[in-house]
Amino acid sequence: MPKLWNDTIEAHRNAVRAATLDAAADLVAEHGPAAVTMSQIAKATGIGRATLYKYFPDVDTILTAWHERQVRSHLDELTQVRDRADPSERLDAVLTAYAVLSYQHPRFELADSLHRAAHVSQARQHLHTLIRELLVEAGSTGDLRTDVPATELATYCLHALGAANALPSKAAVHRLVAVTLSGLRR
Amino acid sequence: MPKLWNDTIEAHRNAVRAATLDAAADLVAEHGPAAVTMSQIAKATGIGRATLYKYFPDVDTILTAWHERQVRSHLDELTQVRDRADPSERLDAVLTAYAVLSYQHPRFELADSLHRAAHVSQARQHLHTLIRELLVEAGSTGDLRTDVPATELATYCLHALGAANALPSKAAVHRLVAVTLSGLRR
Repeated sequence: MPKLWNDTIEAHRNAVRAATLDAAADLVAEHGPAAVTMSQIAKATGIGRATLYKYFPDVDTILTAWHERQVRSHLDELTQVRDRADPSERLDAVLTAYAVLSYQHPRFELADSLHRAAHVSQARQHLHTLIRELLVEAGSTGDLRTDVPATELATYCLHALGAANALPSKAAVHRLVAVTLSGLRR
Repeated sequence: MPKLWNDTIEAHRNAVRAATLDAAADLVAEHGPAAVTMSQIAKATGIGRATLYKYFPDVDTILTAWHERQVRSHLDELTQVRDRADPSERLDAVLTAYAVLSYQHPRFELADSLHRAAHVSQARQHLHTLIRELLVEAGSTGDLRTDVPATELATYCLHALGAANALPSKAAVHRLVAVTLSGLRR
């Protein structure tokens, strides 16, 4: 087959995959993960059940793929925040963005098995490295405490800011970021 | 039956229950939660399988009871630390003890379902209250920041110190406590 034809098929497949993940996420948000079936997902996506099975063997695989996409998009967002920010405000900007993401996307119910999935520990590692590098960079300008290794400070930041998903408002999230940042200072 | 006899039976039952929980926890630590059976637990406890079923219907119930006992004993420990400490060092002492507990007892593998159990959210609430009250008490002596409500600071403390279970050494745990505490100061 000509390359163009293959590209078209590939684009179509990607669109079906993306629409399936969106539909599944909506259904889970509405009914909870235990109540969602392949038939419902097929219907909501607007494709046949048999077609859906050509893409995904079961609901869990769909939700894992959705979660993987979600995690990747959050990492991309944080990387963009870092790249856009002024060097002197980079750490602040990334930590704030991370806290806001934690606030807006609390771990959802079926997250237990997902949170053990390989893509999650990779993403967590990636995020830890991103924060650690920002801390090293900020440390070189002299504003941060030097009595604690950057890798431990990164672990502290990620845990402390994870509290955002338990907070009642965005104002509280910004206060949390301020408290966490002041723990990092000399 | 005379009261003494009832007391003896009750004491015996409690001892069997406690021994069962210990045996189950050891087996889980060794083989992982999925591999543990009622027969193994009965054998390790030194009682018959039929007797074990008089106490607990299944492995999950045993592990939940074990976890409940564990959580309660940690809360008791923290309360004792608070009561024994000098008022001026109370917050520091309790936060340190909590971080050390998180370091020594990382959430174990089957914790997913347990962490949704009612006793866990009660314990978390209890712990949050304990920390919040210490923060209010410490705040009245003027050393703490006043721009953030005590309830939010308590949420911050618990999350930040939860990082202890990801740290490599006790020295790192103490550095984490120092960082977390400095986030609380003016």
